[in-house]
Amino acid sequence: MPASIDPAALRVDGSRLWRRLEALGEVGAVHGPNGERGNARLALTDADRLGRDLVVSWMGDLGLAVSTDAVGNVTATWPGSDPAASAVMIGSHIDTVRTGGWFDGNLGVLGGLEVIETLMAAGITTRRPITVAFFTNEEGARFAPDMLGSLVFVGGMPLEEALDVRAADDSARLGDELVRIGYAGSTPCPAPVMPHAFVELHIEQGPVLEEQGITIGAVTGVQGISWTEVTITGQSAHAGTTPMRLRHDPGYVAAAITTGIRQIAEEMGGAQVATVGRCEFHPNLVNVVPAAVTMTVDLRNTDEGLLVEAEERFVALCLRLAAEEGVQIERRPLARFEPVEFDPTMIERVETTARGLGHSTMRLPSGAGHDAQMLARVCPTSMVFVPSVNGLSHNLAERTEPGDIQAGADVLLQVVLQLAEPLG
Amino acid sequence: MPASIDPAALRVDGSRLWRRLEALGEVGAVHGPNGERGNARLALTDADRLGRDLVVSWMGDLGLAVSTDAVGNVTATWPGSDPAASAVMIGSHIDTVRTGGWFDGNLGVLGGLEVIETLMAAGITTRRPITVAFFTNEEGARFAPDMLGSLVFVGGMPLEEALDVRAADDSARLGDELVRIGYAGSTPCPAPVMPHAFVELHIEQGPVLEEQGITIGAVTGVQGISWTEVTITGQSAHAGTTPMRLRHDPGYVAAAITTGIRQIAEEMGGAQVATVGRCEFHPNLVNVVPAAVTMTVDLRNTDEGLLVEAEERFVALCLRLAAEEGVQIERRPLARFEPVEFDPTMIERVETTARGLGHSTMRLPSGAGHDAQMLARVCPTSMVFVPSVNGLSHNLAERTEPGDIQAGADVLLQVVLQLAEPLG
Repeated sequence: MPASIDPAALRVDGSRLWRRLEALGEVGAVHGPNGERGNARLALTDADRLGRDLVVSWMGDLGLAVSTDAVGNVTATWPGSDPAASAVMIGSHIDTVRTGGWFDGNLGVLGGLEVIETLMAAGITTRRPITVAFFTNEEGARFAPDMLGSLVFVGGMPLEEALDVRAADDSARLGDELVRIGYAGSTPCPAPVMPHAFVELHIEQGPVLEEQGITIGAVTGVQGISWTEVTITGQSAHAGTTPMRLRHDPGYVAAAITTGIRQIAEEMGGAQVATVGRCEFHPNLVNVVPAAVTMTVDLRNTDEGLLVEAEERFVALCLRLAAEEGVQIERRPLARFEPVEFDPTMIERVETTARGLGHSTMRLPSGAGHDAQMLARVCPTSMVFVPSVNGLSHNLAERTEPGDIQAGADVLLQVVLQLAEPLG
Repeated sequence: MPASIDPAALRVDGSRLWRRLEALGEVGAVHGPNGERGNARLALTDADRLGRDLVVSWMGDLGLAVSTDAVGNVTATWPGSDPAASAVMIGSHIDTVRTGGWFDGNLGVLGGLEVIETLMAAGITTRRPITVAFFTNEEGARFAPDMLGSLVFVGGMPLEEALDVRAADDSARLGDELVRIGYAGSTPCPAPVMPHAFVELHIEQGPVLEEQGITIGAVTGVQGISWTEVTITGQSAHAGTTPMRLRHDPGYVAAAITTGIRQIAEEMGGAQVATVGRCEFHPNLVNVVPAAVTMTVDLRNTDEGLLVEAEERFVALCLRLAAEEGVQIERRPLARFEPVEFDPTMIERVETTARGLGHSTMRLPSGAGHDAQMLARVCPTSMVFVPSVNGLSHNLAERTEPGDIQAGADVLLQVVLQLAEPLG
């Protein structure tokens, strides 16, 4: 073990990290019309299983102690010198949306493996263990709520309730899917011992860092999220023979909700965003006024009071439209998380470390939900953001430049190293 | 043959007709939550094949000469005394929408068989043959345009073009589906000999007759129909991190088109109707601003000039929204038919016959498209409407009362009998 190595001078091997990102990106690869290459590894599908198997094989190659908990979260631990010390955890997710990229989530997990491999190669020993985790169903593209695995990990949702969640696509039960793909583990939930601290490296998934020309974002917290599934039931009828005045058209109401929440977001301004991402007509035929429409409404704000205001205006819109058009509107909550503020010391540590490494840095909130917001309930937590080209994410064209990957992983390495306490 | 029977005193056996309607309704039956029983026999599916087989078996049982043409239209002919005389044709369709009822189309076909069986049982002979036809893909729920079979029958669309049409659901080729279900016949298209006249008995599919308390509608013509498939391509993005001002959201644009055509129809008033019946989001995930939306717009009017005005306003709406939101909008015509006016003598014959049978009657245009509008291109044509309970159609709860079925079929019988010229 070369005694001359200064831990603060250590840097990750960005090429090795990039190769792992590429290799994981080959699992469930999706190709776009203009040469884009992204991923479809929806939670607990066969593609997710293959991705999990690959990452677990890398964890094993590094000699880490791998364990899977009852909701499918996987952790790999590199021991520290103090058997009584709790671990510094690095984590994120490897599930993707249906048209996802190969950085979202994956970077935080593979960045964690890269940190450990770098420390191993340099012969560094730390007092605290370092654990790399990937959490089940972060995206929520298949099961609601999103960030389900980390929520269960910290005790925010009972295990049995999580196992009973049904998939939006095929109604499969989450617990059954875990068994099917071989990731129903034996480690209990919530975790018996919580981490000493949690750090997540992630792409920004938005345009701010790129617009400002900044390399490292020190994330101050996470927007509050409110997801609702809306089912509108009207009167199916013939498109040619039914006068406009006699219609009870759920398609029209779905459209009026969609334009209405756009208007709410624009009127409120600031950090308020509002999205209809899912919308399904039944029976979905050109010449039939639909009988029913199912859609989702995604509202987010960094301020809880404003998020509640957006929700109230959305509900009032539904009530007004239901009365005007003579349709029934059912609202089913899919997910609701209050805005989260990260630990000030942890935010400052990311900022100071980035500056010390010579990178430009700024503080910003996260518009997306992240596993870090769940871990923030149980331990000091921070996130490191790197820029997204054109602000794109949840898109096959998602990309972060290799230089920014290197910079972000170096900040992750140094922050974790400080927290894990390297031995003289 | 009892010489004493006065043809004008003949009535159909309404119970026998009702039993056939019920039996055909068992093929591809769909059951609703409140005991409704409807049909799903989309054109050229396995269910459509079973329905066709059943009707053809009834045609055979009556000893009729059955023939199938190259686009799958089936005719069954009862000969007249004059080998040189062209036939009086009774026709409609037996395909349904995905949530259809068991009267729409079926009544016109089975009503035709009932007319022939009634004449046979009474020992009546006519100078002209009487032909009962069912035409392929009238609904257009699976293949566009609707009324495809009758359009090809009259020479309005080349056979090869029709055979190359692809299904909206599974992209199956119409010609391949005809072969698959055994209904690619050998009779050429367009028909070598056009009918002497054409009469179609159909449910109104709208609320007018019921509201007015009228039993028999003498149909004056058919609304013009304009169907367009709209594909909107924007920028898929993360629902949480993408500020509203940076969005290029095809879901929002689809919604604005939907509310916009509602507004156009309401401002134009009169007979103008506008419907979005199909709408599909891609990738259709709660937390992803969609990359693309495909939808249909169905515009109808009894006046060609007004229909053109509605189309122009719809196009202007698309152009404005594409520019405002920064999305691409492609419009693909699926069907376009000008309004049709039926032969005045034929309309009057329906009206007079209904009155002669003691039924209340009124003239009205059809809001739906019908095979009769295609036959009107080549021979004198009329339609007989009977009331729809609550104006419902394209709906599992579609219903027409047995008394109205009897009345409509009696009018059909007497109109056809006059046209076919009963002998001594």
